[in-house]
Amino acid sequence: MTTFSMYTASIPVFKQILGAQLALLEKAEAHVAEKKIDPQALLQYRLYPDMLNFTRQIQIACDFAKGAAARLGGQDVPSYDDNETSFAELRARIEKTLHFIESVPRSAIEGSEGRAITTGSGEKTKHFMGAVYLFHYALPHFYFHATTAYDILRHNGIEIGKKDFIGNY
Amino acid sequence: MTTFSMYTASIPVFKQILGAQLALLEKAEAHVAEKKIDPQALLQYRLYPDMLNFTRQIQIACDFAKGAAARLGGQDVPSYDDNETSFAELRARIEKTLHFIESVPRSAIEGSEGRAITTGSGEKTKHFMGAVYLFHYALPHFYFHATTAYDILRHNGIEIGKKDFIGNY
Repeated sequence: MTTFSMYTASIPVFKQILGAQLALLEKAEAHVAEKKIDPQALLQYRLYPDMLNFTRQIQIACDFAKGAAARLGGQDVPSYDDNETSFAELRARIEKTLHFIESVPRSAIEGSEGRAITTGSGEKTKHFMGAVYLFHYALPHFYFHATTAYDILRHNGIEIGKKDFIGNY
Repeated sequence: MTTFSMYTASIPVFKQILGAQLALLEKAEAHVAEKKIDPQALLQYRLYPDMLNFTRQIQIACDFAKGAAARLGGQDVPSYDDNETSFAELRARIEKTLHFIESVPRSAIEGSEGRAITTGSGEKTKHFMGAVYLFHYALPHFYFHATTAYDILRHNGIEIGKKDFIGNY
């Protein structure tokens, strides 16, 4: 049965949630334009002073998706500059991430459940088996940042609901 | 290879994140006791007036875990009253949920990727194959509510970090 594999449990899931984040960004941009709000008020918003701001939440969600696609597919993880300063640039970051994860061959990810995965470096080095990395590390971190990005928008009055977070599948 | 299955992709993941939420609740309870804050100020806190409060976020995260365990395991979904009014009662809700998901036999969940799953009723009825239900519906909703519960605590100054959300695996 082909309904369940390391590929189907990863790439289509990232595509679902990142695709939804693209639409969330469009709604946020339309909201600030209509209300004549400085976009930076949202882009740099934090739910608490020592939390990461909205822009970083989106960047890091993207990074967990590209990191998972690359590592499970046995490829080097591409490095993206964290230099986005507008909603349009954050959408481009997501689109670049989507293009990358779609570029990793399905055949390279299938069977990666037992692949040895290494993240970080130095004292922060972590070693995983592929399935543990995906389900216990990459996906929880990905959802953590994607949801926090949503919560920042929602907390600031953007008219979105859970359906907009879940997206299409 | 036994490192990857419908069971290992679901029950241990819910256990990891719900176990972490138990510890988050303990930290929140200690914080309000130390600061002499009314616990209801946190338990009923919402990030926006028409969002669900902290208590509901925890209840619903639990419900997506028990719903997934039951449906993938071919069991009826147990019904829990949503009557928790304290941190201790929310911890008991999580513990009850953990006991339930651990009670579903691994053998009943293995192979459920192709099982026909139905959620909701009436106009809200949804039909899924097991793997689509788990990866595209149950896990995204579960993480959405678990992360939003964390964000509510973090926004209110509880001293927690992402490691506390991710938990042990």
